Amino acid sequence: MTPIELYTYQTPNGHKASIMLEEVGLPYSVRLIDIEKGDQTRPDFLALNPNNKIPVIVDRDAGRTVFESGAILHYLARRSGKLQPTSAQEADDTLTWTLFQAAHVGPTLGQLWNYKVFAPDKMPYVIGRFERETGRVFRVLESRLNNHENLVGKSYGIADVMTWPWIHAGVIKLGLSLDDTPNLARWYAAIGRRPAVIRGIAVPALPEASAAA
Amino acid sequence: MTPIELYTYQTPNGHKASIMLEEVGLPYSVRLIDIEKGDQTRPDFLALNPNNKIPVIVDRDAGRTVFESGAILHYLARRSGKLQPTSAQEADDTLTWTLFQAAHVGPTLGQLWNYKVFAPDKMPYVIGRFERETGRVFRVLESRLNNHENLVGKSYGIADVMTWPWIHAGVIKLGLSLDDTPNLARWYAAIGRRPAVIRGIAVPALPEASAAA
Repeated sequence: MTPIELYTYQTPNGHKASIMLEEVGLPYSVRLIDIEKGDQTRPDFLALNPNNKIPVIVDRDAGRTVFESGAILHYLARRSGKLQPTSAQEADDTLTWTLFQAAHVGPTLGQLWNYKVFAPDKMPYVIGRFERETGRVFRVLESRLNNHENLVGKSYGIADVMTWPWIHAGVIKLGLSLDDTPNLARWYAAIGRRPAVIRGIAVPALPEASAAA
Repeated sequence: MTPIELYTYQTPNGHKASIMLEEVGLPYSVRLIDIEKGDQTRPDFLALNPNNKIPVIVDRDAGRTVFESGAILHYLARRSGKLQPTSAQEADDTLTWTLFQAAHVGPTLGQLWNYKVFAPDKMPYVIGRFERETGRVFRVLESRLNNHENLVGKSYGIADVMTWPWIHAGVIKLGLSLDDTPNLARWYAAIGRRPAVIRGIAVPALPEASAAA
């Protein structure tokens, strides 16, 4: 098949798509969208995603363009027949935990990142609020992983691929601790050892100039 | 069938579920979760949703409990056979726009609401940032609705039910204007005339003491 085009950058949302492509083994080619240079606002990119965000995939053979990382993961699971839910219950739960990531994990850590790292003034009320919400979100994941090996039942799947890159970013970029959430820590470590995950977070390779910046 | 139990409150996320139940015509009974009194942190509610958020549905006949509003809408569409996508392309697009609501529309308007209305100090940097992001999100919806009657193709569906209550809250609670987004305004007005929507936003009826507060 024609390789799927992946428009991406080195971010947690981008890594969801590259990890999934590595996991399911579909051929793909990488198109670097340098969001630090504003590539995501170019008309040719907006034609793919009016929301000007990476990742986006274009599957030429199927005539399909997909954006929003959670939709991309569901698409690639169905396209490959891999990492799919195995029952109606699992399909419902997969959608629930995909949405939990999209609505809570990502936005909360994203805002914390902005107000802790990028905001010109460091505002204690705002940082404190997003730190407390981060703690709450981590405890929700901990309670789920306390009696589930992965987010949806026994098998690693879409919801795990959706969530792992943000926990990873929280740990390595924001220095968040998983000491108080041992089941989240166990899940995070196990997934981090998967070869497809190790390959996926190296995508996209950045040009040397950017990597050195 | 046994009526589906809907655990909800008077919020945009709650209205997604009540509107959908009215649209598809499944029998349901309302369980008021008063989030202003902290009902959502009671152990019996946390057993339904560890994320302590409304809405939640319990479908006793199917033995299924579902949380995250986007997952509830997909579940109810399948359960009833109504408002479902009619092709694989529509199913992909429905998931994309459901996730766009969950990841962008809801979190952005929710944060704007907090920092404009509830925060003890009104911080211009923070309010300005969420106002700009609200404008950007509205323009994304406008660009989509410029060449689509509804968010996914011609037919009103899950993605519209998902998004409309937050636009409604933005208009009536935050006083946001749709003057610069005429297609979003056209879509908002048309959906607001649907009888199921008018019934859905009246759910749950609040006790008189709360209503008067």
